Amino acid sequence: MTDNPRLTHVDESGAARMVDVSSKPVTARTARASGRVLVSAEVVALLRGAGVPKGDALAVARIAGIMGAKRTPDLVPLCHPIALSGVEVDLAVADDAVEIVATVRTTDRTGVEMEALTAVSVAGLAVIDMVKAVDPAATITQVRVEEKTGGKTGTWRR
Amino acid sequence: MTDNPRLTHVDESGAARMVDVSSKPVTARTARASGRVLVSAEVVALLRGAGVPKGDALAVARIAGIMGAKRTPDLVPLCHPIALSGVEVDLAVADDAVEIVATVRTTDRTGVEMEALTAVSVAGLAVIDMVKAVDPAATITQVRVEEKTGGKTGTWRR
Amino acid sequence: MTDNPRLTHVDESGAARMVDVSSKPVTARTARASGRVLVSAEVVALLRGAGVPKGDALAVARIAGIMGAKRTPDLVPLCHPIALSGVEVDLAVADDAVEIVATVRTTDRTGVEMEALTAVSVAGLAVIDMVKAVDPAATITQVRVEEKTGGKTGTWRR
Amino acid sequence: MTDNPRLTHVDESGAARMVDVSSKPVTARTARASGRVLVSAEVVALLRGAGVPKGDALAVARIAGIMGAKRTPDLVPLCHPIALSGVEVDLAVADDAVEIVATVRTTDRTGVEMEALTAVSVAGLAVIDMVKAVDPAATITQVRVEEKTGGKTGTWRR
Amino acid sequence: MTDNPRLTHVDESGAARMVDVSSKPVTARTARASGRVLVSAEVVALLRGAGVPKGDALAVARIAGIMGAKRTPDLVPLCHPIALSGVEVDLAVADDAVEIVATVRTTDRTGVEMEALTAVSVAGLAVIDMVKAVDPAATITQVRVEEKTGGKTGTWRR
Amino acid sequence: MTDNPRLTHVDESGAARMVDVSSKPVTARTARASGRVLVSAEVVALLRGAGVPKGDALAVARIAGIMGAKRTPDLVPLCHPIALSGVEVDLAVADDAVEIVATVRTTDRTGVEMEALTAVSVAGLAVIDMVKAVDPAATITQVRVEEKTGGKTGTWRR
Repeated sequence: MTDNPRLTHVDESGAARMVDVSSKPVTARTARASGRVLVSAEVVALLRGAGVPKGDALAVARIAGIMGAKRTPDLVPLCHPIALSGVEVDLAVADDAVEIVATVRTTDRTGVEMEALTAVSVAGLAVIDMVKAVDPAATITQVRVEEKTGGKTGTWRR
Repeated sequence: MTDNPRLTHVDESGAARMVDVSSKPVTARTARASGRVLVSAEVVALLRGAGVPKGDALAVARIAGIMGAKRTPDLVPLCHPIALSGVEVDLAVADDAVEIVATVRTTDRTGVEMEALTAVSVAGLAVIDMVKAVDPAATITQVRVEEKTGGKTGTWRR
Repeated sequence: MTDNPRLTHVDESGAARMVDVSSKPVTARTARASGRVLVSAEVVALLRGAGVPKGDALAVARIAGIMGAKRTPDLVPLCHPIALSGVEVDLAVADDAVEIVATVRTTDRTGVEMEALTAVSVAGLAVIDMVKAVDPAATITQVRVEEKTGGKTGTWRR
Repeated sequence: MTDNPRLTHVDESGAARMVDVSSKPVTARTARASGRVLVSAEVVALLRGAGVPKGDALAVARIAGIMGAKRTPDLVPLCHPIALSGVEVDLAVADDAVEIVATVRTTDRTGVEMEALTAVSVAGLAVIDMVKAVDPAATITQVRVEEKTGGKTGTWRR
Repeated sequence: MTDNPRLTHVDESGAARMVDVSSKPVTARTARASGRVLVSAEVVALLRGAGVPKGDALAVARIAGIMGAKRTPDLVPLCHPIALSGVEVDLAVADDAVEIVATVRTTDRTGVEMEALTAVSVAGLAVIDMVKAVDPAATITQVRVEEKTGGKTGTWRR
Repeated sequence: MTDNPRLTHVDESGAARMVDVSSKPVTARTARASGRVLVSAEVVALLRGAGVPKGDALAVARIAGIMGAKRTPDLVPLCHPIALSGVEVDLAVADDAVEIVATVRTTDRTGVEMEALTAVSVAGLAVIDMVKAVDPAATITQVRVEEKTGGKTGTWRR
């Protein structure tokens, strides 16, 4: 990926720092991340509305994900606080999992991969919180960036 | 798991709510969760200190995880704000991943599974933030509860 | 209401303080607050699902209210941070308004009237945020405590 | 107000989202909102300094309102986090109420109506917190936008 | 101070952790901390009301300190989130400084020295923010615990 | 420093406000602040690694400082929320103190002196939290701006 690989968030002496991005241009950037919450068949049936109303369940996770994206710089120590221009979090109930995709947009000096990953993670945590009484083994898996656009490195796809 | 399976966080009409735990006893409870951040061989080498100092890298993730546990009720919409008696986050660099284990303790009316899962997730996000310039494909996986103790349902192990 | 009326949150010299409640007993307490968001007929129709899906609209406000209750000590300067045992926020679409009722429970040393009022206010703000493009004149009104129970002063009803 | 009325914060399937504002221009914008906290004659007398010092009472509410404006994106789920260029919160004690007016300025891609309404609401909550021991029936009412300027839709006045 | 001196917040391998306090008793505890903000004679005159109204200046710092005490676990990574029973922040204008004293009370499993020190520090930062245009050299100094009571180690005085 | 000295954060009537900076230009700005935490010889030995691993101790303070800089507008009531382009926090163990220097960069409408001072203060609080069991008399001192650049007033050095 780089000629001179390095953990960019630690300086030459190994100390953590928030990297200076003053000289980076303000450009439109997007990032899309995805993840899955593996759940039991019983949970899938409940989320599909069997027996009792599924009601707000997916809405809770969607909103948690959107709000989570905004909390990224509070959670990830070396992330820059940046303006977010838009956040979408989609959830779909598959046969063995809840599938989550988050898309984040900004017009700023850094990319928004971390915001998209945080949205997916927090949405996934909210899903587990709602299903854990029924399925204590629910598992968040495959949380990863799918695509990013904009900035000096341009488009990257998984 | 239950005779009458239900998403406990939505009421009979489907509306989200923070469940009333007033009548639950205050007891000592623990939860242990784990997860893995899959990273490239190059990242493993960097985290093991090849060439440049790994420095604070694992400390950043450990501290992010501990602080993340405290932010759980801010992130997960229907989680109760509770007192945490102790939080430990351990990170180990394996050959293909950073392995994370979080242990959370409380003496309160609800369990701390969500706090342990949040600690793991936030530590994982912090790891990705530090390695993403070298490995944009880094993936958080297998975030799940390993064990919980205390409360009415007692000990559960994966 | 009192023989010796006083603003309890300022001391004898007029300085703001967070009142010492160390000597108050830990007891079960509840508070119920309500409020209304006055909206146009057009908004009422939209929230009732005319033409386009109303979707998550009420869920967003309900979740905002629940999460808002948890943020009360961050927002109201002299409020004590306390454990919340349960929060419910109900929204109903009337002919000229969205009606909001929040019920908050605790087992702690202070009442939860402020938490209930904050839940109503934040839910109301979320409603306005969603309807303001259609009805910029939407108004939050009649935000008030309906009932509280527990504590030294016992039950109070409007 | 619009040819094609719609709740802008839910997409065509009804899912909540933070609307993409990337393509909106950065312009100077202001919003002014107002509200009233109805209080008893006894409270009015106390706030006017009868008997005991009113001290910091109005300052607490003013500062709570200013800080509340900054917390808007943390509270209102679908609000964009934006830069605020200025916030003023004025409180006046009338014969039956505390009157609150908040003015918020930005130079960004979205309006600041929600920030102004949040400032008024949080200031109102802080007023109630201080007077509730004397007047448990205190009520926040008429929280609404009075005027906004800037952006594509330009000036709007109530 | 101890027979076996150690940084309690790092374990035997040097890893940071939030120490387990589950087995500590819940007792009433207090801490008092103090600090000074050194300011120019010009600032002292302004804070004493020369020429222009000093207005809310000290109230802003007092409220910032009280609210800061509540944010301690968000700021200090290894601090336990605990219930605060009361917070007082006193400010006095001396001839060369603003003197700050904060007193914090709890009934919980850990002491509140950090909360008292955080209240003093944040109040001091708020003072500097207000005077820095007039005195950019203003300095926070001598922030320290004066006294603590309660807990296993009992009363300690400077 | 000024012809017409004034506390800029209170208006002509003495009311606190967040000053309007809409008309200020967006320019690159930096601030550097420093401070010291006076500690006992025993603590100095521990931080230098005598006997037990110092481990994460300085990393905890460094990360707390960086994250603290991002929380400045949440803590200091009248501070503008601004984008931060970079934050560095350096800690050095001297013979009688831990020395802290924070450098903050922005490209925005206001300076970042408060962010740099907050970074130093929070890092100092984190140091005290870790050493207070060994040295309860540890003291934060000399927290002050060393240098700022950019903006209308240009470079200022202590």
